[in-house]
Amino acid sequence: MTQRASKLVIVTEKVLQKQIAKIIDEAGATGYTVVDAGGKGSRNVRSSGRPTVSDNFSNVKFEILTPNRDMAVKISDEVAARYFDNYSGIAYLCDVMEVLHAHKF
Amino acid sequence: MTQRASKLVIVTEKVLQKQIAKIIDEAGATGYTVVDAGGKGSRNVRSSGRPTVSDNFSNVKFEILTPNRDMAVKISDEVAARYFDNYSGIAYLCDVMEVLHAHKF
Amino acid sequence: MTQRASKLVIVTEKVLQKQIAKIIDEAGATGYTVVDAGGKGSRNVRSSGRPTVSDNFSNVKFEILTPNRDMAVKISDEVAARYFDNYSGIAYLCDVMEVLHAHKF
Repeated sequence: MTQRASKLVIVTEKVLQKQIAKIIDEAGATGYTVVDAGGKGSRNVRSSGRPTVSDNFSNVKFEILTPNRDMAVKISDEVAARYFDNYSGIAYLCDVMEVLHAHKF
Repeated sequence: MTQRASKLVIVTEKVLQKQIAKIIDEAGATGYTVVDAGGKGSRNVRSSGRPTVSDNFSNVKFEILTPNRDMAVKISDEVAARYFDNYSGIAYLCDVMEVLHAHKF
Repeated sequence: MTQRASKLVIVTEKVLQKQIAKIIDEAGATGYTVVDAGGKGSRNVRSSGRPTVSDNFSNVKFEILTPNRDMAVKISDEVAARYFDNYSGIAYLCDVMEVLHAHKF
């Protein structure tokens, strides 16, 4: 009854939220979760010129369940190619998820 | 010293937060973490009739560590049976967690 | 092109946020993500004397990607030794992450 899945996590700047949601949709993923996040990355400054470590949670974290690794890598490649030269960001993957219940996946 | 664990993730509508916390407690889990979340699911509209993609973070994401897969599946089954016909929601599992430090687990 | 990684998750009280960020930095991790969180743990009360289950999201959840398990365990051990006798907290690890894109990792 359950189904294996990959979970792609993308943490990046909040200003990119709509553009990244569009990339996820276009790749054919059925959904995603997004939360406000703060944090620190390997760059010393963000695109805004403010320090990377901020208290105001100006990052977002996307979590996208995909039916296979290929779709996750495709989304990640697209986001990185378009934005990670100029914006803070990281994308990582966990391949061992198991979907127990979903309307459609 | 460490202990294997399963991590159950449930993303659903915020109005269900208290009911789901109760199900988790009754299943015998020692704790959970909950964060506000936004996102998009496979349904076009939510139970509220508003569009699924919302900026106001009207979802919640539960993360529950359980000592075994059975407890996680029991919680997931109960939540899905009670609520997923009428509310947006997804439940998925990761079986490869390792608890390093906890007061009690 | 991708790189294996461990993901350390620490959920604890928000008052410890700066101290834990310092421990992460000193361990040599290149970054972390932090989100506000609520929840319930195995203790009945928190250090503040308020009930553990709270609506006001007075916990934080750190997620730290590390290039190996040793760095994750070192951070976890340090945080637990300093704070988990007196504050609510849990630390757990997932060893099967794969970093797809990052400025530096």
